[in-house]
Amino acid sequence: MVPTTGNTQNGVVLLHVYDRAEDVVSLRNEIFEQPAVLERLLKTQGEAAVEIASTVKKRQVKSVFIAARGSSDNAALYGKYLWGFLNRLPVGLATPSLFTMYRTPPRLEGSLVVGISQSGESPDIVSVVKEGRRQGNLTLAITNEPSSPLAAEAELLLETGAGEERAVAATKTYTTQLAAIALLGAAAADAPDLFAALDRVPDLVKEALDLDDAIRVAAQRYRYMSQCVVLGRGFNYATAYEWSLKLKEMTYVVAEPYSSADFRHGPVAIVSDGFPVLAVLPAGAVFEDGMRLLETLATEHRAELLVLSNDDRALALAKTPIRLPSDLPEWLSPLVSIVPAQLFCYHLTQAMGYDTESPRRLRKVTRTL
Amino acid sequence: MVPTTGNTQNGVVLLHVYDRAEDVVSLRNEIFEQPAVLERLLKTQGEAAVEIASTVKKRQVKSVFIAARGSSDNAALYGKYLWGFLNRLPVGLATPSLFTMYRTPPRLEGSLVVGISQSGESPDIVSVVKEGRRQGNLTLAITNEPSSPLAAEAELLLETGAGEERAVAATKTYTTQLAAIALLGAAAADAPDLFAALDRVPDLVKEALDLDDAIRVAAQRYRYMSQCVVLGRGFNYATAYEWSLKLKEMTYVVAEPYSSADFRHGPVAIVSDGFPVLAVLPAGAVFEDGMRLLETLATEHRAELLVLSNDDRALALAKTPIRLPSDLPEWLSPLVSIVPAQLFCYHLTQAMGYDTESPRRLRKVTRTL
Repeated sequence: MVPTTGNTQNGVVLLHVYDRAEDVVSLRNEIFEQPAVLERLLKTQGEAAVEIASTVKKRQVKSVFIAARGSSDNAALYGKYLWGFLNRLPVGLATPSLFTMYRTPPRLEGSLVVGISQSGESPDIVSVVKEGRRQGNLTLAITNEPSSPLAAEAELLLETGAGEERAVAATKTYTTQLAAIALLGAAAADAPDLFAALDRVPDLVKEALDLDDAIRVAAQRYRYMSQCVVLGRGFNYATAYEWSLKLKEMTYVVAEPYSSADFRHGPVAIVSDGFPVLAVLPAGAVFEDGMRLLETLATEHRAELLVLSNDDRALALAKTPIRLPSDLPEWLSPLVSIVPAQLFCYHLTQAMGYDTESPRRLRKVTRTL
Repeated sequence: MVPTTGNTQNGVVLLHVYDRAEDVVSLRNEIFEQPAVLERLLKTQGEAAVEIASTVKKRQVKSVFIAARGSSDNAALYGKYLWGFLNRLPVGLATPSLFTMYRTPPRLEGSLVVGISQSGESPDIVSVVKEGRRQGNLTLAITNEPSSPLAAEAELLLETGAGEERAVAATKTYTTQLAAIALLGAAAADAPDLFAALDRVPDLVKEALDLDDAIRVAAQRYRYMSQCVVLGRGFNYATAYEWSLKLKEMTYVVAEPYSSADFRHGPVAIVSDGFPVLAVLPAGAVFEDGMRLLETLATEHRAELLVLSNDDRALALAKTPIRLPSDLPEWLSPLVSIVPAQLFCYHLTQAMGYDTESPRRLRKVTRTL
């Protein structure tokens, strides 16, 4: 691995361009590393999470404000739901241009300002955390790079410790970000049963990885798919976003994520006979709402459904059913349900003959303003 | 016009199904009504906006929390930027499922809780405002229906007063929502020059409507477009979302909205030779960042660009340039830039032979939980 020096190209600074000739299966390896890196994170970061949670209480944080881009922004979406659910905190997602371009940042009084970034490099994310700190707010970096500018700028640090990620598409750095968010939520809720549930995640991810062969076969059907929608709601709204981002990055399919509610308010019009709809719908509080939409899509609009679920009723509606582990707490389901989605994208990329390691137009670290 | 009684269909309650045989050009009429309804709103709602702004100050509001769906949610995106910019307020967008399905609403202490809805009917939006009020927060409804459940639930009301909107796709109710948001921002900032700028909007919209013929001709080229991306950043992030929603609703094109920054973090991979990129990029603080992206897209990735701008450099990159009024304050540009986008969708719908009044699968009022 030879990192070359950064160069600027049309406002996007390319930081590390790896020579990866000796290893062209990073993506697959990284998907399969997830049980191990999640287990390590849960073992090593628990104490840090408890300390951060205690600081959050001491400083009387009333709300959370998160800045992130790409897959990290999808992890932030999970945080928006989970910290609302477990900790009753309102979570806002930042508008970095107000900080970097309009130069009129909002007053964030009483907020925990969080930057989430694998590399900790993107200047817009660093700017939001810097301004949050300047205003006297508590700040936190969730990053895979403890020596990054983002980690340096934030008062608190939670390391994802996923190890180097070489494939351009984020996989293990995304699930470890989710785990870091879940760990913080559990620590702030101070409920031992939440930690016990979290400890089961690596095994649940292993179980999801066992679907590899079945998903390789199932993905062939989608070889000529050019567009689709991806549905998920509540905690798995994040999964819908991350799945569709992976599809766009790796397979170049125009994949649009929606909650079942937002989809009904207009976008459902695009569905015609055979239109592919991918849905992530594990058992839980939003299940029945999702089922009603999937039933309409399957029977009235004649969409073609690919469904990730652990409920027989949802799977029965699908042309391509993919079964999630059965005993899956809904609040942790995004850490598991994204895994078959990653495998699907990996195998579809192979079926389409594209490069699984380095999608066109993209580099590992994207720096935006 | 004969409203029929509501009926429930797969969890979506259809409220008003109009018999519209006597008038099949509602959409076009409603687009062209915009200067008049905007002028009326600015004339009649200024005092209400000043009163609401004074209550907001009295109650020491520290942040804003908005619940909305569909086009109203795109208006909320404008509010997120504008109230951050003019009033330095952090604005969060609600996650209604935390209120309606998980039943663990966040603690919204110190927030103004806003529901935005044309009809004021959707139960999820009403639930968020109701819970906000139960918690003792100041609440505001921005709606076209002053006798709706949403208006009844909120302490404060700002009417958009757009008159009945009969076409399923929102046009004048969207721009009047933007104007209501701008009026409130100006009132809370208490700066007379902002009101003077707002008063020019109806004339600027008239100027944009003069593009009708040119856009009718330009739209023919896109007759067989099946997918595209729509780019906009900062204030016009909302425009990108609303334009893409209109495209999906009316033309069934899979159109995905992005900020120029988010687009670089992965989705840019989908762009290949000739891929259609629609961009809204008026002069302003985010212009140079958008230009850098458009230059890369045009020259390196060979995308086909349709550009709405009032800057010659941006227009020169486009296969289809559409010129916005020249003297357009950036903070108000979304009220004007969406107008040629609406006309584009109207003419493209006609070119494709679809129904401009009643898109398939949709009804005027969508009630989600």
